[in-house]
Amino acid sequence: MKSVVIGVDIGGTFSKFGIVDREGNILVEGSIPTDTFENVVDYQKSLYEAIEKAIAPIKSDIDIKGIGFGAPNANYYKGTIESAANLKWKGVVHFAELFKKYYNFPIVLTNDANAAAIGEGLYGGAKGMQDYIVITLGTGLGSGIVANGKMIYGFDGFAGELGHVMVEPNGRKCGCGKLGCLETYASATGIKRTVFKLLCDMTDESELRQYNFYELTSEKIYEAALRNDPVALKAFEFTGNILGAKLADAVAFSTPEAIFLFGGLAKAGEVLFKPIRESFEANLLPIYRNKIKILPSGLQDKNVAVMGASALIWKELGN
Amino acid sequence: MKSVVIGVDIGGTFSKFGIVDREGNILVEGSIPTDTFENVVDYQKSLYEAIEKAIAPIKSDIDIKGIGFGAPNANYYKGTIESAANLKWKGVVHFAELFKKYYNFPIVLTNDANAAAIGEGLYGGAKGMQDYIVITLGTGLGSGIVANGKMIYGFDGFAGELGHVMVEPNGRKCGCGKLGCLETYASATGIKRTVFKLLCDMTDESELRQYNFYELTSEKIYEAALRNDPVALKAFEFTGNILGAKLADAVAFSTPEAIFLFGGLAKAGEVLFKPIRESFEANLLPIYRNKIKILPSGLQDKNVAVMGASALIWKELGN
Repeated sequence: MKSVVIGVDIGGTFSKFGIVDREGNILVEGSIPTDTFENVVDYQKSLYEAIEKAIAPIKSDIDIKGIGFGAPNANYYKGTIESAANLKWKGVVHFAELFKKYYNFPIVLTNDANAAAIGEGLYGGAKGMQDYIVITLGTGLGSGIVANGKMIYGFDGFAGELGHVMVEPNGRKCGCGKLGCLETYASATGIKRTVFKLLCDMTDESELRQYNFYELTSEKIYEAALRNDPVALKAFEFTGNILGAKLADAVAFSTPEAIFLFGGLAKAGEVLFKPIRESFEANLLPIYRNKIKILPSGLQDKNVAVMGASALIWKELGN
Repeated sequence: MKSVVIGVDIGGTFSKFGIVDREGNILVEGSIPTDTFENVVDYQKSLYEAIEKAIAPIKSDIDIKGIGFGAPNANYYKGTIESAANLKWKGVVHFAELFKKYYNFPIVLTNDANAAAIGEGLYGGAKGMQDYIVITLGTGLGSGIVANGKMIYGFDGFAGELGHVMVEPNGRKCGCGKLGCLETYASATGIKRTVFKLLCDMTDESELRQYNFYELTSEKIYEAALRNDPVALKAFEFTGNILGAKLADAVAFSTPEAIFLFGGLAKAGEVLFKPIRESFEANLLPIYRNKIKILPSGLQDKNVAVMGASALIWKELGN
């Protein structure tokens, strides 16, 4: 019997799951839609059935130790998902409690960026590190902060929302209701907003002028940057400058050994990492300079969310 | 035999020490000058002699468990004091190592704000809290951050420098060499700088116009505020606005149960706390609102630095 855990990544559109062993190998995987279920009870039933179906062929060979979920606005302490903007289940959803009817092994939830950070520590570039930060650059900006070898959940279970530290007092409107939050600048959506600002401010020719707001994506900005499009290059520089400065502030807080960038935008590589590193070093307190690495996630092309969600259980079991 | 520890607060001008029991009672105390010693070896000899002299009358009744030091730029991991601007001993001073010749019980160092935070947790308002932050508002702004019940030292032992997060990209020159650091706004020195800016911007009559830059102190600004001096009131509002916003960013990081403000400027009470709280709540991510307390230190009038330095040893002993 092989000890395994189930990792589930609950996204706004799809939920992916995998059966993961202690080394991070995904033995079996699958997915179900998320947004077709108005009701979380129906969703859980469908998820349970999909998992059971997927594991049927190997069921006699595995010993399932627990199930870990990564989800937006998930609360580790309470096992709840609370007011997640991208999910249809409103208010406070007692997710772990409700799921107990299917399994009696440990059921643990955390937010998706925390799950990514735990995965990075167990399987990725942060292996062996006691102090590190993972930043996820997707539609928004998520963060998972590990200090003294432990995830920082805060007293209420919602810590690690660096996407909402302030860049400009009266800056861009954020989905959270505030103005000037970091994720309105440093995220796939943020860089798109930046391009529109630059298309206004600059007069240079740019292939990005052909797209309307719905058509433009961070991938298109990246591809244009590779062709030396001046607006695209400027957009990455602007984004990197802001993110680098805010990561320097994060160092003043917890002084990690390394900061890992994960997600679509992080795949841009040096066109993004170079301005980040320059701004980061310039904004660091001198005692921190040239000590702290900014790295792409070591799990960039893997199903990190599922691995992270499964790592949550391994961590819980003290393995 | 009563178990006690020695707490030492190394300040730029004076070093205070005390023999402290498990409950935080200071049985004996004393002090020696700091800045008259060009050499740390001479300083340590003098400190040792002063401690021995002070404890002589009670020596047969006590069992000394260790000595804890709070000092600027002290490194907990290495037992060093590194490039402290306010001390005469330059470069990297191997303080704990050097002091071993006097005592063979545990010798532990941390920076003064971390010591204050540990003291707040053991003896003050943070008793029983697992997640809290202490901000010291003195000449500069120091911070001690506790998460998951542990002080955050970071991978290099220098974490928790919230005085150097950025308020304005091209703001006020800071002692650290950067521009726009928080402590250039929110500290006794910061509010004085703010008054000079306001004396320029405003035309109101103000008793603060009679002071030159050397004469003005944060106490005088506070006293003027109590008399409704418009410049003084505006200075506290400006300071509170900035500090409140940056404390909101700190919540996005570690979500403490409470933030304690300690030190001279924090004694100003509501004239400072009111704008801090307003700006804090307005800048918090909605999920954090009306949950997190901003409080004056529970040890405000006590010798917190000595208590904190002693608490460092109790903590070390797991008591």
